[in-house]
Amino acid sequence: MEIRLAKNYGFCFGVKRAINIAQNAPGAFTIGPLIHNNEEILRLKNNYNVETLGSVEEAQGIKKAIIRTHGIQKEDLERLKKIGVEIIDATCPFVTKPQKICEEMSAQGYTIIIFGDKNHPEVKGVKSYSLHESVHVVLSIEEIKEINIGKKAALVSQTTRNINEFLKIVDFLVKTCAEVRVFNTICNATFENQDAARELAMNTDIVIVIGGKNSSNTKQLYGIVKEYCKDSFLVENDKELNSSWFTGKKICGITAGASTPDWIIEKIIEKIRKIKV
Amino acid sequence: MEIRLAKNYGFCFGVKRAINIAQNAPGAFTIGPLIHNNEEILRLKNNYNVETLGSVEEAQGIKKAIIRTHGIQKEDLERLKKIGVEIIDATCPFVTKPQKICEEMSAQGYTIIIFGDKNHPEVKGVKSYSLHESVHVVLSIEEIKEINIGKKAALVSQTTRNINEFLKIVDFLVKTCAEVRVFNTICNATFENQDAARELAMNTDIVIVIGGKNSSNTKQLYGIVKEYCKDSFLVENDKELNSSWFTGKKICGITAGASTPDWIIEKIIEKIRKIKV
Repeated sequence: MEIRLAKNYGFCFGVKRAINIAQNAPGAFTIGPLIHNNEEILRLKNNYNVETLGSVEEAQGIKKAIIRTHGIQKEDLERLKKIGVEIIDATCPFVTKPQKICEEMSAQGYTIIIFGDKNHPEVKGVKSYSLHESVHVVLSIEEIKEINIGKKAALVSQTTRNINEFLKIVDFLVKTCAEVRVFNTICNATFENQDAARELAMNTDIVIVIGGKNSSNTKQLYGIVKEYCKDSFLVENDKELNSSWFTGKKICGITAGASTPDWIIEKIIEKIRKIKV
Repeated sequence: MEIRLAKNYGFCFGVKRAINIAQNAPGAFTIGPLIHNNEEILRLKNNYNVETLGSVEEAQGIKKAIIRTHGIQKEDLERLKKIGVEIIDATCPFVTKPQKICEEMSAQGYTIIIFGDKNHPEVKGVKSYSLHESVHVVLSIEEIKEINIGKKAALVSQTTRNINEFLKIVDFLVKTCAEVRVFNTICNATFENQDAARELAMNTDIVIVIGGKNSSNTKQLYGIVKEYCKDSFLVENDKELNSSWFTGKKICGITAGASTPDWIIEKIIEKIRKIKV
Protein backbone atom coordinates (compact mmCIF):
# COMPACT_ATOMS: atom_id res chain seq x y z
CA MET A 1 0.00 0.00 0.00
CA GLU A 2 1.32 3.42 -0.97
CA ILE A 3 1.36 6.06 1.78
CA ARG A 4 0.85 9.65 0.70
CA LEU A 5 1.26 12.65 2.95
CA ALA A 6 -0.78 15.78 2.38
CA LYS A 7 1.18 18.68 0.87
CA ASN A 8 0.58 20.66 4.05
CA TYR A 9 -0.20 19.16 7.42
CA GLY A 10 0.61 19.27 11.11
CA PHE A 11 2.18 21.88 13.35
CA CYS A 12 1.36 25.47 12.56
CA PHE A 13 3.37 28.53 13.45
CA GLY A 14 1.35 29.24 16.63
CA VAL A 15 1.72 25.70 17.99
CA LYS A 16 5.44 25.54 17.25
CA ARG A 17 5.88 28.88 18.98
CA ALA A 18 3.85 27.79 22.04
CA ILE A 19 5.79 24.55 22.45
CA ASN A 20 9.04 26.43 22.18
CA ILE A 21 7.85 28.87 24.87
CA ALA A 22 6.78 26.00 27.15
CA GLN A 23 10.05 24.11 26.73
CA ASN A 24 11.82 27.24 27.90
CA ALA A 25 9.66 27.62 31.01
CA PRO A 26 10.22 24.52 33.17
CA GLY A 27 8.14 24.56 36.34
CA ALA A 28 5.44 26.72 34.76
CA PHE A 29 1.77 25.78 34.59
CA THR A 30 -0.47 26.22 31.59
CA ILE A 31 -4.03 27.43 32.21
CA GLY A 32 -5.92 24.72 30.34
CA PRO A 33 -4.10 22.50 27.82
CA LEU A 34 -1.40 24.42 25.91
CA ILE A 35 -2.50 22.84 22.62
CA HIS A 36 -5.21 20.32 21.80
CA ASN A 37 -3.01 17.24 21.80
CA ASN A 38 -2.91 15.05 24.87
CA GLU A 39 0.20 13.12 23.82
CA GLU A 40 2.24 16.27 23.36
CA ILE A 41 0.96 17.71 26.65
CA LEU A 42 2.18 14.56 28.38
CA ARG A 43 5.59 14.87 26.72
CA LEU A 44 5.89 18.48 27.95
CA LYS A 45 5.02 17.35 31.47
CA ASN A 46 7.45 14.42 31.50
CA ASN A 47 10.37 16.05 29.72
CA TYR A 48 10.00 19.75 30.60
CA ASN A 49 8.10 19.79 33.88
CA VAL A 50 5.31 21.91 32.41
CA GLU A 51 1.99 20.94 33.92
CA THR A 52 -1.58 21.75 33.01
CA LEU A 53 -4.13 23.35 35.32
CA GLY A 54 -7.84 22.90 34.73
CA SER A 55 -8.67 26.54 35.26
CA VAL A 56 -7.45 29.84 36.67
CA GLU A 57 -9.00 28.95 40.06
CA GLU A 58 -6.19 26.45 40.56
CA ALA A 59 -3.48 29.05 39.90
CA GLN A 60 -3.27 30.35 43.46
CA GLY A 61 0.26 29.84 44.71
CA ILE A 62 1.91 29.04 41.39
CA LYS A 63 4.80 31.18 40.15
CA LYS A 64 4.54 31.12 36.38
CA ALA A 65 1.44 30.73 34.23
CA ILE A 66 1.60 30.00 30.51
CA ILE A 67 -1.34 31.26 28.47
CA ARG A 68 -2.36 28.51 26.04
CA THR A 69 -2.29 28.95 22.22
CA HIS A 70 -6.07 29.48 22.19
CA GLY A 71 -5.82 32.41 24.61
CA ILE A 72 -7.92 32.76 27.74
CA GLN A 73 -10.81 34.95 28.79
CA LYS A 74 -10.01 38.57 29.56
CA GLU A 75 -11.34 38.28 33.13
CA ASP A 76 -9.14 35.21 33.75
CA LEU A 77 -6.10 37.09 32.54
CA GLU A 78 -6.96 39.95 34.87
CA ARG A 79 -7.39 37.52 37.77
CA LEU A 80 -3.95 36.03 37.11
CA LYS A 81 -2.44 39.50 37.10
CA LYS A 82 -4.16 40.29 40.39
CA ILE A 83 -2.77 37.25 42.20
CA GLY A 84 0.70 38.28 41.04
CA VAL A 85 1.61 35.29 38.89
CA GLU A 86 4.28 35.78 36.23
CA ILE A 87 2.47 35.52 32.90
CA ILE A 88 4.09 33.88 29.91
CA ASP A 89 1.90 34.51 26.89
CA ALA A 90 1.82 31.69 24.34
CA THR A 91 -1.43 32.88 22.76
CA CYS A 92 -1.13 32.40 19.02
CA PRO A 93 -0.79 35.87 17.42
CA PHE A 94 -3.54 34.85 14.99
CA VAL A 95 -5.84 34.47 18.00
CA THR A 96 -4.79 37.74 19.60
CA LYS A 97 -6.01 39.42 16.40
CA PRO A 98 -9.73 38.50 16.66
CA GLN A 99 -9.56 39.33 20.40
CA LYS A 100 -8.41 42.86 19.53
CA ILE A 101 -10.95 43.17 16.72
CA CYS A 102 -13.74 42.13 19.07
CA GLU A 103 -12.69 44.78 21.56
CA GLU A 104 -12.30 47.55 18.98
CA MET A 105 -15.48 46.82 17.05
CA SER A 106 -17.56 46.62 20.22
CA ALA A 107 -16.11 49.99 21.27
CA GLN A 108 -17.33 51.35 17.92
CA GLY A 109 -20.84 50.05 18.55
CA TYR A 110 -20.92 47.14 16.12
CA THR A 111 -22.88 44.00 16.96
CA ILE A 112 -20.20 41.30 17.14
CA ILE A 113 -20.71 37.98 15.42
CA ILE A 114 -18.13 35.27 16.05
CA PHE A 115 -18.25 32.34 13.67
CA GLY A 116 -17.18 29.39 15.76
CA ASP A 117 -17.91 26.86 18.46
CA LYS A 118 -19.19 28.59 21.61
CA ASN A 119 -17.62 25.90 23.81
CA HIS A 120 -14.14 26.25 22.33
CA PRO A 121 -11.65 28.11 24.56
CA GLU A 122 -10.42 30.28 21.69
CA VAL A 123 -13.97 31.48 21.02
CA LYS A 124 -14.71 32.02 24.71
CA GLY A 125 -11.55 34.11 24.88
CA VAL A 126 -12.39 36.23 21.83
CA LYS A 127 -15.95 36.78 23.07
CA SER A 128 -14.73 37.97 26.46
CA TYR A 129 -13.05 40.97 24.81
CA SER A 130 -16.33 42.54 23.76
CA LEU A 131 -17.13 45.70 25.70
CA HIS A 132 -20.88 45.17 25.30
CA GLU A 133 -23.37 42.32 25.44
CA SER A 134 -24.23 42.31 21.73
CA VAL A 135 -21.75 39.55 20.98
CA HIS A 136 -22.99 36.30 19.49
CA VAL A 137 -21.31 33.02 18.62
CA VAL A 138 -22.83 31.14 15.71
CA LEU A 139 -22.07 28.16 13.54
CA SER A 140 -24.98 28.31 11.12
CA ILE A 141 -27.51 30.53 9.37
CA GLU A 142 -30.21 28.98 11.56
CA GLU A 143 -28.48 30.27 14.70
CA ILE A 144 -27.87 33.71 13.29
CA LYS A 145 -31.50 34.12 12.27
CA GLU A 146 -32.46 34.13 15.94
CA ILE A 147 -30.41 37.25 16.65
CA ASN A 148 -31.51 40.87 16.52
CA ILE A 149 -28.39 42.14 14.77
CA GLY A 150 -29.24 45.75 14.00
CA LYS A 151 -27.75 47.75 11.13
CA LYS A 152 -24.02 47.38 11.77
CA ALA A 153 -22.28 44.08 12.37
CA ALA A 154 -18.65 43.04 12.66
CA LEU A 155 -17.79 39.45 11.90
CA VAL A 156 -14.73 37.46 12.94
CA SER A 157 -14.02 33.77 12.69
CA GLN A 158 -12.48 31.21 14.96
CA THR A 159 -9.05 30.78 13.33
CA THR A 160 -9.60 27.14 12.43
CA ARG A 161 -12.94 27.22 10.63
CA ASN A 162 -13.82 26.38 7.05
CA ILE A 163 -13.90 29.41 4.72
CA ASN A 164 -16.95 28.23 2.74
CA GLU A 165 -19.06 27.92 5.89
CA PHE A 166 -17.81 31.34 6.95
CA LEU A 167 -18.94 32.81 3.62
CA LYS A 168 -22.49 31.57 4.21
CA ILE A 169 -22.61 33.71 7.35
CA VAL A 170 -21.06 36.63 5.46
CA ASP A 171 -23.71 36.40 2.74
CA PHE A 172 -26.53 36.28 5.26
CA LEU A 173 -25.21 39.33 7.10
CA VAL A 174 -24.68 41.33 3.91
CA LYS A 175 -28.31 40.67 2.97
CA THR A 176 -29.51 41.71 6.42
CA CYS A 177 -27.35 44.65 7.51
CA ALA A 178 -26.52 48.04 6.04
CA GLU A 179 -22.85 47.57 6.94
CA VAL A 180 -20.86 44.44 7.67
CA ARG A 181 -17.20 44.55 8.62
CA VAL A 182 -15.79 41.19 7.74
CA PHE A 183 -12.47 40.19 9.27
CA ASN A 184 -11.17 37.01 7.73
CA THR A 185 -9.35 35.69 10.78
CA ILE A 186 -9.16 32.11 9.54
CA CYS A 187 -5.43 31.42 9.64
CA ASN A 188 -3.37 30.52 6.60
CA ALA A 189 -2.18 27.25 8.08
CA THR A 190 -5.83 26.24 8.38
CA PHE A 191 -6.45 27.17 4.75
CA GLU A 192 -3.37 25.38 3.53
CA ASN A 193 -3.96 22.22 5.57
CA GLN A 194 -7.59 22.11 4.48
CA ASP A 195 -6.81 22.63 0.80
CA ALA A 196 -4.09 19.99 0.93
CA ALA A 197 -6.40 17.55 2.76
CA ARG A 198 -9.06 18.01 0.10
CA GLU A 199 -6.60 17.35 -2.70
CA LEU A 200 -5.24 14.33 -0.88
CA ALA A 201 -8.65 12.80 -0.17
CA MET A 202 -9.67 13.04 -3.82
CA ASN A 203 -6.90 10.69 -4.86
CA THR A 204 -6.74 8.08 -2.12
CA ASP A 205 -8.70 4.99 -1.01
CA ILE A 206 -8.38 5.68 2.70
CA VAL A 207 -7.40 8.75 4.71
CA ILE A 208 -6.05 8.81 8.26
CA VAL A 209 -6.41 12.17 9.99
CA ILE A 210 -4.14 12.43 13.03
CA GLY A 211 -4.93 14.83 15.83
CA GLY A 212 -6.69 15.56 19.10
CA LYS A 213 -10.39 14.79 19.18
CA ASN A 214 -10.80 18.08 21.06
CA SER A 215 -8.96 19.95 18.30
CA SER A 216 -11.20 22.17 16.18
CA ASN A 217 -8.91 22.26 13.16
CA THR A 218 -8.40 18.48 13.25
CA LYS A 219 -12.16 17.93 13.27
CA GLN A 220 -12.49 20.33 10.33
CA LEU A 221 -9.88 18.35 8.40
CA TYR A 222 -11.75 15.16 9.14
CA GLY A 223 -15.02 16.74 7.93
CA ILE A 224 -13.35 17.75 4.66
CA VAL A 225 -11.65 14.45 3.82
CA LYS A 226 -14.80 12.51 4.72
CA GLU A 227 -16.60 14.38 1.94
CA TYR A 228 -14.17 13.14 -0.68
CA CYS A 229 -13.15 9.75 0.71
CA LYS A 230 -15.74 7.82 2.70
CA ASP A 231 -13.06 5.61 4.28
CA SER A 232 -11.61 8.34 6.44
CA PHE A 233 -10.66 7.89 10.11
CA LEU A 234 -9.62 10.25 12.88
CA VAL A 235 -7.05 8.91 15.34
CA GLU A 236 -5.10 10.43 18.21
CA ASN A 237 -2.36 7.82 18.31
CA ASP A 238 -1.14 4.58 16.76
CA LYS A 239 -3.10 2.44 19.22
CA GLU A 240 -6.36 3.58 17.70
CA LEU A 241 -5.49 2.24 14.24
CA ASN A 242 -7.55 -0.77 13.15
CA SER A 243 -5.88 -2.98 10.56
CA SER A 244 -9.23 -4.03 9.05
CA TRP A 245 -9.70 -0.46 7.75
CA PHE A 246 -6.86 -1.01 5.28
CA THR A 247 -7.98 -4.29 3.71
CA GLY A 248 -7.87 -4.01 -0.08
CA LYS A 249 -6.72 -0.39 -0.06
CA LYS A 250 -4.05 0.75 -2.51
CA ILE A 251 -3.33 4.34 -1.51
CA CYS A 252 -3.47 5.62 2.06
CA GLY A 253 -3.49 9.39 2.58
CA ILE A 254 -2.24 10.95 5.79
CA THR A 255 -2.89 14.37 7.18
CA ALA A 256 -2.66 15.86 10.66
CA GLY A 257 -4.07 18.78 12.65
CA ALA A 258 -2.10 21.89 13.52
CA SER A 259 -1.43 20.61 17.03
CA THR A 260 -0.18 17.16 16.03
CA PRO A 261 3.56 16.70 16.58
CA ASP A 262 5.70 14.97 13.98
CA TRP A 263 6.72 12.21 16.35
CA ILE A 264 3.12 10.97 16.58
CA ILE A 265 2.70 11.14 12.81
CA GLU A 266 5.89 9.15 12.29
CA LYS A 267 4.84 6.52 14.80
CA ILE A 268 1.53 6.07 13.01
CA ILE A 269 3.11 5.85 9.55
CA GLU A 270 5.50 3.22 10.86
CA LYS A 271 2.59 1.17 12.17
CA ILE A 272 0.59 1.50 8.95
CA ARG A 273 3.58 0.30 6.92
CA LYS A 274 3.51 -2.94 8.88
CA ILE A 275 -0.20 -3.61 8.25
CA LYS A 276 -0.84 -6.35 5.72
CA VAL A 277 -3.52 -5.20 3.25
CA MET B 1 -55.34 36.54 -21.97
CA GLU B 2 -54.96 37.29 -18.28
CA ILE B 3 -52.75 40.25 -17.38
CA ARG B 4 -50.87 40.06 -14.10
CA LEU B 5 -48.90 42.89 -12.54
CA ALA B 6 -45.87 42.20 -10.38
CA LYS B 7 -46.47 42.70 -6.67
CA ASN B 8 -43.93 45.55 -6.73
CA TYR B 9 -42.95 47.53 -9.80
CA GLY B 10 -42.35 50.99 -11.16
CA PHE B 11 -41.54 54.29 -9.51
CA CYS B 12 -39.33 54.16 -6.47
CA PHE B 13 -39.07 56.72 -3.71
CA GLY B 14 -36.08 58.50 -5.28
CA VAL B 15 -37.70 58.88 -8.69
CA LYS B 16 -41.01 60.11 -7.26
CA ARG B 17 -39.10 62.63 -5.17
CA ALA B 18 -37.03 63.83 -8.15
CA ILE B 19 -40.07 64.30 -10.38
CA ASN B 20 -41.80 66.21 -7.63
CA ILE B 21 -38.74 68.45 -7.26
CA ALA B 22 -38.59 69.02 -11.02
CA GLN B 23 -42.30 69.84 -11.31
CA ASN B 24 -41.74 72.53 -8.71
CA ALA B 25 -38.82 74.11 -10.56
CA PRO B 26 -40.09 75.35 -13.93
CA GLY B 27 -37.39 76.90 -16.05
CA ALA B 28 -34.67 74.82 -14.41
CA PHE B 29 -32.27 72.60 -16.34
CA THR B 30 -31.23 69.11 -15.31
CA ILE B 31 -27.59 68.13 -15.78
CA GLY B 32 -28.07 64.94 -17.78
CA PRO B 33 -31.47 63.21 -17.82
CA LEU B 34 -33.28 63.50 -14.46
CA ILE B 35 -34.26 59.82 -14.60
CA HIS B 36 -33.67 57.11 -17.17
CA ASN B 37 -36.98 57.41 -18.97
CA ASN B 38 -37.14 59.38 -22.17
CA GLU B 39 -40.93 59.60 -22.24
CA GLU B 40 -41.13 61.08 -18.77
CA ILE B 41 -38.29 63.51 -19.54
CA LEU B 42 -40.30 64.72 -22.53
CA ARG B 43 -43.40 65.18 -20.37
CA LEU B 44 -41.41 67.29 -17.89
CA LYS B 45 -40.14 69.45 -20.74
CA ASN B 46 -43.55 69.94 -22.35
CA ASN B 47 -45.62 70.38 -19.21
CA TYR B 48 -43.18 71.89 -16.71
CA ASN B 49 -40.57 73.62 -18.84
CA VAL B 50 -37.76 71.55 -17.31
CA GLU B 51 -35.10 70.87 -19.92
CA THR B 52 -32.14 68.54 -20.02
CA LEU B 53 -28.55 69.59 -20.63
CA GLY B 54 -26.02 67.10 -21.95
CA SER B 55 -23.34 68.07 -19.45
CA VAL B 56 -22.17 70.70 -17.00
CA GLU B 57 -20.29 72.46 -19.83
CA GLU B 58 -23.62 73.65 -21.19
CA ALA B 59 -24.69 75.15 -17.86
CA GLN B 60 -23.04 78.53 -18.38
CA GLY B 61 -25.71 81.23 -18.21
CA ILE B 62 -28.52 79.09 -16.77
CA LYS B 63 -30.15 80.10 -13.46
CA LYS B 64 -31.19 76.84 -11.85
CA ALA B 65 -29.62 73.39 -12.21
CA ILE B 66 -31.34 70.24 -11.01
CA ILE B 67 -29.02 67.41 -10.01
CA ARG B 68 -30.38 64.16 -11.46
CA THR B 69 -31.48 61.18 -9.30
CA HIS B 70 -28.19 59.39 -10.11
CA GLY B 71 -26.13 62.28 -8.74
CA ILE B 72 -23.25 63.88 -10.59
CA GLN B 73 -19.49 63.88 -10.25
CA LYS B 74 -18.06 65.87 -7.36
CA GLU B 75 -15.99 68.06 -9.70
CA ASP B 76 -19.08 68.85 -11.80
CA LEU B 77 -20.96 69.91 -8.68
CA GLU B 78 -18.07 72.15 -7.70
CA ARG B 79 -17.99 73.66 -11.17
CA LEU B 80 -21.71 74.46 -10.96
CA LYS B 81 -21.17 76.13 -7.61
CA LYS B 82 -18.29 78.16 -9.06
CA ILE B 83 -20.36 79.56 -11.92
CA GLY B 84 -22.99 80.64 -9.41
CA VAL B 85 -25.92 78.54 -10.57
CA GLU B 86 -28.70 77.83 -8.03
CA ILE B 87 -28.46 74.12 -7.32
CA ILE B 88 -31.58 72.02 -6.73
CA ASP B 89 -30.48 68.59 -5.54
CA ALA B 90 -32.68 65.73 -6.70
CA THR B 91 -30.01 63.09 -6.05
CA CYS B 92 -31.72 60.04 -4.59
CA PRO B 93 -30.76 59.79 -0.89
CA PHE B 94 -29.89 56.14 -1.52
CA VAL B 95 -27.25 57.37 -3.99
CA THR B 96 -25.92 60.08 -1.69
CA LYS B 97 -25.13 57.28 0.78
CA PRO B 98 -22.55 55.37 -1.33
CA GLN B 99 -21.04 58.75 -2.34
CA LYS B 100 -20.45 59.55 1.35
CA ILE B 101 -19.20 56.03 2.09
CA CYS B 102 -16.74 56.27 -0.79
CA GLU B 103 -15.42 59.56 0.58
CA GLU B 104 -15.16 58.36 4.19
CA MET B 105 -13.64 54.98 3.43
CA SER B 106 -11.04 56.48 1.10
CA ALA B 107 -10.16 58.95 3.88
CA GLN B 108 -9.58 55.95 6.15
CA GLY B 109 -7.24 54.35 3.62
CA TYR B 110 -9.43 51.53 2.33
CA THR B 111 -9.17 50.43 -1.27
CA ILE B 112 -12.62 51.21 -2.69
CA ILE B 113 -14.44 48.67 -4.80
CA ILE B 114 -17.67 49.77 -6.47
CA PHE B 115 -19.83 46.98 -7.81
CA GLY B 116 -21.50 48.48 -10.85
CA ASP B 117 -21.31 49.66 -14.41
CA LYS B 118 -18.39 52.05 -14.89
CA ASN B 119 -20.28 53.95 -17.60
CA HIS B 120 -23.37 54.58 -15.48
CA PRO B 121 -23.70 58.18 -14.17
CA GLU B 122 -24.49 56.98 -10.63
CA VAL B 123 -21.27 54.98 -10.52
CA LYS B 124 -19.21 57.78 -12.04
CA GLY B 125 -20.63 60.07 -9.36
CA VAL B 126 -19.87 57.69 -6.48
CA LYS B 127 -16.36 57.06 -7.78
CA SER B 128 -15.62 60.77 -7.97
CA TYR B 129 -15.98 61.04 -4.18
CA SER B 130 -12.90 58.94 -3.48
CA LEU B 131 -10.05 60.96 -2.05
CA HIS B 132 -7.44 58.61 -3.52
CA GLU B 133 -6.84 56.72 -6.75
CA SER B 134 -7.38 53.22 -5.32
CA VAL B 135 -10.99 53.13 -6.43
CA HIS B 136 -12.14 50.43 -8.82
CA VAL B 137 -15.41 49.71 -10.57
CA VAL B 138 -16.10 46.05 -11.26
CA LEU B 139 -18.94 43.87 -12.45
CA SER B 140 -17.33 40.45 -12.15
CA ILE B 141 -14.76 38.31 -10.35
CA GLU B 142 -12.67 38.35 -13.54
CA GLU B 143 -12.38 42.13 -13.37
CA ILE B 144 -11.59 42.20 -9.67
CA LYS B 145 -8.81 39.62 -10.05
CA GLU B 146 -6.84 42.17 -12.07
CA ILE B 147 -6.67 44.60 -9.14
CA ASN B 148 -3.99 44.90 -6.48
CA ILE B 149 -6.41 45.36 -3.59
CA GLY B 150 -4.17 45.24 -0.53
CA LYS B 151 -5.30 44.18 2.94
CA LYS B 152 -8.26 46.48 3.55
CA ALA B 153 -11.12 46.98 1.13
CA ALA B 154 -14.44 48.77 1.33
CA LEU B 155 -17.18 47.63 -1.00
CA VAL B 156 -20.29 49.51 -2.11
CA SER B 157 -22.80 48.69 -4.78
CA GLN B 158 -24.59 50.66 -7.45
CA THR B 159 -28.08 50.94 -5.92
CA THR B 160 -29.77 48.96 -8.66
CA ARG B 161 -27.65 45.82 -8.87
CA ASN B 162 -28.55 42.21 -8.18
CA ILE B 163 -27.71 41.04 -4.65
CA ASN B 164 -26.54 37.58 -5.70
CA GLU B 165 -23.99 39.02 -8.10
CA PHE B 166 -22.90 41.42 -5.37
CA LEU B 167 -22.34 38.49 -2.98
CA LYS B 168 -19.95 36.85 -5.45
CA ILE B 169 -17.74 39.94 -5.19
CA VAL B 170 -18.12 39.93 -1.39
CA ASP B 171 -17.01 36.30 -1.18
CA PHE B 172 -14.00 36.90 -3.39
CA LEU B 173 -12.90 39.89 -1.32
CA VAL B 174 -13.36 38.06 2.01
CA LYS B 175 -11.12 35.28 0.70
CA THR B 176 -8.50 37.78 -0.44
CA CYS B 177 -8.37 40.56 2.18
CA ALA B 178 -7.82 40.67 5.93
CA GLU B 179 -10.69 43.13 6.32
CA VAL B 180 -13.61 43.91 4.05
CA ARG B 181 -16.17 46.56 4.91
CA VAL B 182 -19.26 45.67 3.01
CA PHE B 183 -21.92 48.34 2.56
CA ASN B 184 -25.06 46.89 1.10
CA THR B 185 -26.19 49.97 -0.79
CA ILE B 186 -28.56 48.12 -3.08
CA CYS B 187 -31.85 49.91 -2.47
CA ASN B 188 -34.94 48.20 -1.12
CA ALA B 189 -37.07 49.16 -4.10
CA THR B 190 -34.57 47.31 -6.28
CA PHE B 191 -34.78 44.25 -4.02
CA GLU B 192 -38.55 44.34 -3.93
CA ASN B 193 -39.03 44.89 -7.64
CA GLN B 194 -36.53 42.12 -8.43
CA ASP B 195 -38.13 39.62 -6.04
CA ALA B 196 -41.58 40.42 -7.36
CA ALA B 197 -40.39 40.13 -10.99
CA ARG B 198 -38.90 36.69 -10.27
CA GLU B 199 -42.11 35.47 -8.69
CA LEU B 200 -44.15 36.88 -11.56
CA ALA B 201 -41.99 35.33 -14.28
CA MET B 202 -42.24 31.87 -12.72
CA ASN B 203 -45.98 31.82 -13.25
CA THR B 204 -46.55 33.48 -16.61
CA ASP B 205 -46.19 32.60 -20.31
CA ILE B 206 -44.87 35.99 -21.36
CA VAL B 207 -43.43 38.93 -19.45
CA ILE B 208 -43.30 42.54 -20.59
CA VAL B 209 -40.73 44.67 -18.79
CA ILE B 210 -41.41 48.36 -19.23
CA GLY B 211 -38.63 50.90 -18.83
CA GLY B 212 -35.82 52.92 -20.35
CA LYS B 213 -33.21 50.91 -22.24
CA ASN B 214 -30.58 53.11 -20.54
CA SER B 215 -32.02 52.24 -17.11
CA SER B 216 -29.80 49.96 -15.03
CA ASN B 217 -32.58 48.65 -12.80
CA THR B 218 -34.86 47.99 -15.78
CA LYS B 219 -32.13 45.98 -17.49
CA GLN B 220 -31.62 44.00 -14.25
CA LEU B 221 -35.35 43.22 -14.12
CA TYR B 222 -35.24 42.06 -17.72
CA GLY B 223 -32.25 39.81 -16.95
CA ILE B 224 -34.12 38.23 -14.04
CA VAL B 225 -37.45 37.55 -15.79
CA LYS B 226 -35.62 36.18 -18.84
CA GLU B 227 -34.14 33.46 -16.62
CA TYR B 228 -37.58 32.21 -15.61
CA CYS B 229 -39.65 33.00 -18.69
CA LYS B 230 -37.94 32.83 -22.07
CA ASP B 231 -40.67 34.91 -23.73
CA SER B 232 -39.73 38.14 -21.99
CA PHE B 233 -39.49 41.49 -23.74
CA LEU B 234 -38.19 44.92 -22.76
CA VAL B 235 -40.10 47.89 -24.16
CA GLU B 236 -39.94 51.64 -23.60
CA ASN B 237 -43.42 52.44 -24.89
CA ASP B 238 -46.56 50.92 -26.42
CA LYS B 239 -45.28 51.41 -29.97
CA GLU B 240 -42.61 48.77 -29.40
CA LEU B 241 -45.12 46.03 -28.61
CA ASN B 242 -45.39 43.31 -31.26
CA SER B 243 -48.70 41.46 -31.30
CA SER B 244 -47.07 38.25 -32.59
CA TRP B 245 -45.29 37.86 -29.20
CA PHE B 246 -48.64 37.12 -27.55
CA THR B 247 -49.93 34.41 -29.90
CA GLY B 248 -51.14 31.42 -27.86
CA LYS B 249 -50.19 32.98 -24.50
CA LYS B 250 -52.55 32.62 -21.55
CA ILE B 251 -50.98 34.74 -18.82
CA CYS B 252 -49.03 37.93 -19.48
CA GLY B 253 -46.91 39.33 -16.63
CA ILE B 254 -46.06 43.01 -16.43
CA THR B 255 -43.34 44.72 -14.49
CA ALA B 256 -41.61 48.08 -14.81
CA GLY B 257 -38.37 49.77 -13.83
CA ALA B 258 -38.07 52.27 -10.99
CA SER B 259 -38.08 55.16 -13.46
CA THR B 260 -41.15 54.08 -15.42
CA PRO B 261 -44.19 56.32 -14.81
CA ASP B 262 -47.63 54.81 -14.32
CA TRP B 263 -49.06 56.56 -17.37
CA ILE B 264 -46.74 54.60 -19.68
CA ILE B 265 -47.57 51.33 -17.92
CA GLU B 266 -51.29 52.00 -18.25
CA LYS B 267 -50.98 52.84 -21.93
CA ILE B 268 -49.16 49.56 -22.55
CA ILE B 269 -51.67 47.47 -20.60
CA GLU B 270 -54.49 49.07 -22.58
CA LYS B 271 -52.79 48.13 -25.85
CA ILE B 272 -52.06 44.55 -24.72
CA ARG B 273 -55.72 44.08 -23.78
CA LYS B 274 -56.67 44.81 -27.38
CA ILE B 275 -54.28 42.25 -28.87
CA LYS B 276 -56.00 39.10 -30.13
CA VAL B 277 -54.12 36.01 -28.93
